[in-house]
Amino acid sequence: MTRILIVGGVAGGASAAARARRMSEEAEIIMFDRGPYVSFANCGLPYHIGGDIELRDALLLQTPESFKQRFNVDVRVHSEVTHIDAAAKTITVKDLQTQQSYSISYDKLLLSPGAVSVRPNIPGLDNARTFGLRTIPDMDQIKTIIQQHSVQHATVVGGGYIGLEAVEALRQLNINVTLLELAPQVMTAVDPEMATPLHQTLRDHGVDLRLGTALESVSETENGLTLSLNNGDRLDTELLITAMGVKPDTSLAESAGVNIGKTGGIAVNEAMQTSVSDIYAVGDAVEHIDLVTQQPALIPLAGPANRQGRSAADNMLGGQKIYGHTQATAICRVFNLAAACTGSSEKSLLKHGVAYEKIYVHPMSHAGYFPGAKPVSLKLLFAPDTGVILGAQAVGEDGIDKRIDVLAVALRAGMTVFDLETLELCYAPPYGSAKDVVNLAGFVASNLLRGEIDICQVEDIIDPQPHQVVLDVRNPPELENVGAINGALNIPLDSLRDRLNELDRSKEYLVTCMVGLRAHVAYRLLVNSGFKAKNMTGGFKTYQMVKQQFKA
Amino acid sequence: MTRILIVGGVAGGASAAARARRMSEEAEIIMFDRGPYVSFANCGLPYHIGGDIELRDALLLQTPESFKQRFNVDVRVHSEVTHIDAAAKTITVKDLQTQQSYSISYDKLLLSPGAVSVRPNIPGLDNARTFGLRTIPDMDQIKTIIQQHSVQHATVVGGGYIGLEAVEALRQLNINVTLLELAPQVMTAVDPEMATPLHQTLRDHGVDLRLGTALESVSETENGLTLSLNNGDRLDTELLITAMGVKPDTSLAESAGVNIGKTGGIAVNEAMQTSVSDIYAVGDAVEHIDLVTQQPALIPLAGPANRQGRSAADNMLGGQKIYGHTQATAICRVFNLAAACTGSSEKSLLKHGVAYEKIYVHPMSHAGYFPGAKPVSLKLLFAPDTGVILGAQAVGEDGIDKRIDVLAVALRAGMTVFDLETLELCYAPPYGSAKDVVNLAGFVASNLLRGEIDICQVEDIIDPQPHQVVLDVRNPPELENVGAINGALNIPLDSLRDRLNELDRSKEYLVTCMVGLRAHVAYRLLVNSGFKAKNMTGGFKTYQMVKQQFKA
Repeated sequence: MTRILIVGGVAGGASAAARARRMSEEAEIIMFDRGPYVSFANCGLPYHIGGDIELRDALLLQTPESFKQRFNVDVRVHSEVTHIDAAAKTITVKDLQTQQSYSISYDKLLLSPGAVSVRPNIPGLDNARTFGLRTIPDMDQIKTIIQQHSVQHATVVGGGYIGLEAVEALRQLNINVTLLELAPQVMTAVDPEMATPLHQTLRDHGVDLRLGTALESVSETENGLTLSLNNGDRLDTELLITAMGVKPDTSLAESAGVNIGKTGGIAVNEAMQTSVSDIYAVGDAVEHIDLVTQQPALIPLAGPANRQGRSAADNMLGGQKIYGHTQATAICRVFNLAAACTGSSEKSLLKHGVAYEKIYVHPMSHAGYFPGAKPVSLKLLFAPDTGVILGAQAVGEDGIDKRIDVLAVALRAGMTVFDLETLELCYAPPYGSAKDVVNLAGFVASNLLRGEIDICQVEDIIDPQPHQVVLDVRNPPELENVGAINGALNIPLDSLRDRLNELDRSKEYLVTCMVGLRAHVAYRLLVNSGFKAKNMTGGFKTYQMVKQQFKA
Repeated sequence: MTRILIVGGVAGGASAAARARRMSEEAEIIMFDRGPYVSFANCGLPYHIGGDIELRDALLLQTPESFKQRFNVDVRVHSEVTHIDAAAKTITVKDLQTQQSYSISYDKLLLSPGAVSVRPNIPGLDNARTFGLRTIPDMDQIKTIIQQHSVQHATVVGGGYIGLEAVEALRQLNINVTLLELAPQVMTAVDPEMATPLHQTLRDHGVDLRLGTALESVSETENGLTLSLNNGDRLDTELLITAMGVKPDTSLAESAGVNIGKTGGIAVNEAMQTSVSDIYAVGDAVEHIDLVTQQPALIPLAGPANRQGRSAADNMLGGQKIYGHTQATAICRVFNLAAACTGSSEKSLLKHGVAYEKIYVHPMSHAGYFPGAKPVSLKLLFAPDTGVILGAQAVGEDGIDKRIDVLAVALRAGMTVFDLETLELCYAPPYGSAKDVVNLAGFVASNLLRGEIDICQVEDIIDPQPHQVVLDVRNPPELENVGAINGALNIPLDSLRDRLNELDRSKEYLVTCMVGLRAHVAYRLLVNSGFKAKNMTGGFKTYQMVKQQFKA
């Protein structure tokens, strides 16, 4: 009989326990968690605070009892595993309720300890009104404070997924919220210009968003806290939620002599084995291999953790299940918007020295003539030589998850932008368009790689060279209502053919419109008529997003 | 200068005209349409009748004037092309307003005539209260009749996309509706059991649905029509909409000696060329090559038509653009439900003798603990040897388009069910689950092909063999509330491990639950304990869908 010990009872650990039992009725399976709960919906915590999820019990997907009943897994909560003796194949477990420790041997050991919050050494952070938001007790304490003190103002530090979700939850409770983010953008998984719509909607929903701002110290006052910020500002608040990111929890693994990768995560092979025999690891604590860059990366996401758990379970029982690469598909709801991404961001490609090309499109989420259509702002990153998809990001009110899912599959399949042209996606007016957002992105990118269009970026429009002229082909009312580009020549597309004689063949025209579609028609008209031209990819909408990025 | 003539100004034709101009400023492009409009949103017609689309003008995407202005395309409406002289490279055009005909020569000719309605020879069908719903004038006439006569009852013949959308539109106007469908199911693109939720929702929304029922004759009465049906019934109605399917409009092509394929569509090569030099054809009039069966097929869908138009335009101007296969991704909204499909249906695979395996899953559209989650009933068809995806169908209230889009890309990429296990899709509680619907379908199918599970189908449960016992592992309240399976043994999953002694090792247990998930755990428990078992794929939910199919 194989004894499998599992450290950590959420996501990867719980998936592994259930899978292991399905694969073997004989194995002895014991799962330890230092907290009072296992297999809880940690992604749901902010939504229970905000009220979207009414019942607290809805977050408790399994209990120790239900795990025992259904899977014959011995779940030990309040149980901290403090040491691994890899030579003896034993672990030391401390019962946090009795403070008693005991030792237990294993045949196979799975580490699924997750990540720990990054908590910089900020003076005063250790107080009764400051919490993370990673566990059920965290959530319970935050709810209690809000109720007991009728909190009117709260501060969230960190604009990642949890921070953004916490902000939204607090606003749903009509609490005034300040969001402090050290970076010049929230949701750093996407590139800065793609985050600007999120900044706008945060402010539109009454959030006091302070980018590029760090918390320096915290002092307790009679009714709350006073925060000192790195710009010299002081801020009174009644509740402080820290969401400054996470790092792999590797302390236990290190005690066993397990190799830690250069990213700081536990190094594992594709069987989820660590460097130490019979010790496996999964989830937020391990180092993933990024699908696009093929480099080690920390990718703390629930989906990969669950699948790694399944694989590890099979392999601990003698299977040969391979976990491949992680592509880091992710999404976050921010009030009316969703922002999502898959694969590499532009900044990641730059960092890893990967050559890329980028285009932007902003088509409607479904047929424009059908009510409820909303723009999907999509950025596509791809290899300039082969057209292989490297990454995609999208933001908007509708259909964001669908487009990134489609592109996630295309990326995983190794598809190129030429393949995106031919994808056949669901079309009826309530759901899409005959030429879907993803097809359009494929058209633009393929036109570029086939040499049917030459593009420029917002930076070129902002600061054109002497031989270049910015040509805006929108109609004058659009310029008045939405905004014009400084110094741009304006000739509406539909009169361009008749006004070509106004143009100068020695110049290069940088053509733009609202989203890039009319500019494409104008571009083709110009080059087919012997002019030099480039199309600014994504038009004025991209221009606005990039400009706002610098204003943040 | 190349002169390109285009016959038909919607979808494929209009796409080709715009693309041709973008590729060449010099080409002379003339587009003919027998109707008064070009480039109108034919998919939006039912939604304007029902009121979802308020403004009629929203359906007119381009006008002859706007086409001229923007693309310098000479658009001639009310112009029927009556003959092609392929040897002389001329066509004969009849101006339907003046009744004058004229001849015009071409360098390249594109046929985009679309499809014509199938109108069987039903006596009395030619009357003032009977209409198709394929053009703006059709729509206008239907709206006029409804208003002028305060129509209280309407009948739709044909339960395809247009018929279903017409039914919904009429119900939105509080008109009583009878839907006559000759087949035993609506939306024949999906398999019969997948259509049963549509039947249910049609009836729930007050539609008098009559399946397996044909219209035999129509007679005019003082205030409307009397319909005679093939079952002897008579039905009084005030408005009759025919939507009995379409067939390629090949009459013009035949006049030029163009080859017609065995399906009845114009035969084209992958450059969209017909058998006659310099004549191209696209859209509903042509024969597609089905991606899965590799056989010729009629696939009248807007997306492929548009993309074929783009390809044909390039090729008429000397390009070498290949249009590949069509996979027939489609979706239809039916009140609260969407039904969608991609690739082959089971009946199509049977017809073409393609070996397949099938599984069903019914997971939630997003995290079950987050409000608004709805079941996604998904059927996955795949090759039994390689696991290559052959087709997928889904029905439900939420997230249907997304899942079929994901599977459409996977199918197009040649992915297998093993690839579906590892897809990384967007997950946050409002949008998905850490194990998405598509991952779960991949798990089940992969488990099957790896031999980790053996499955049976509903038919096996309905009529088990003597050595088989149906074992339902749901909890007794579920049986009472939702329904039980006749003759099934009921042991709830969570007590199965303790009650194995009640089972007979000489029997084979056909295990079922609500959706197949608990049955999978039970199945593994049984086989790991030495029992013979099979899991009924998709559980009681699939059972109900299949049973209802026979009741329809």
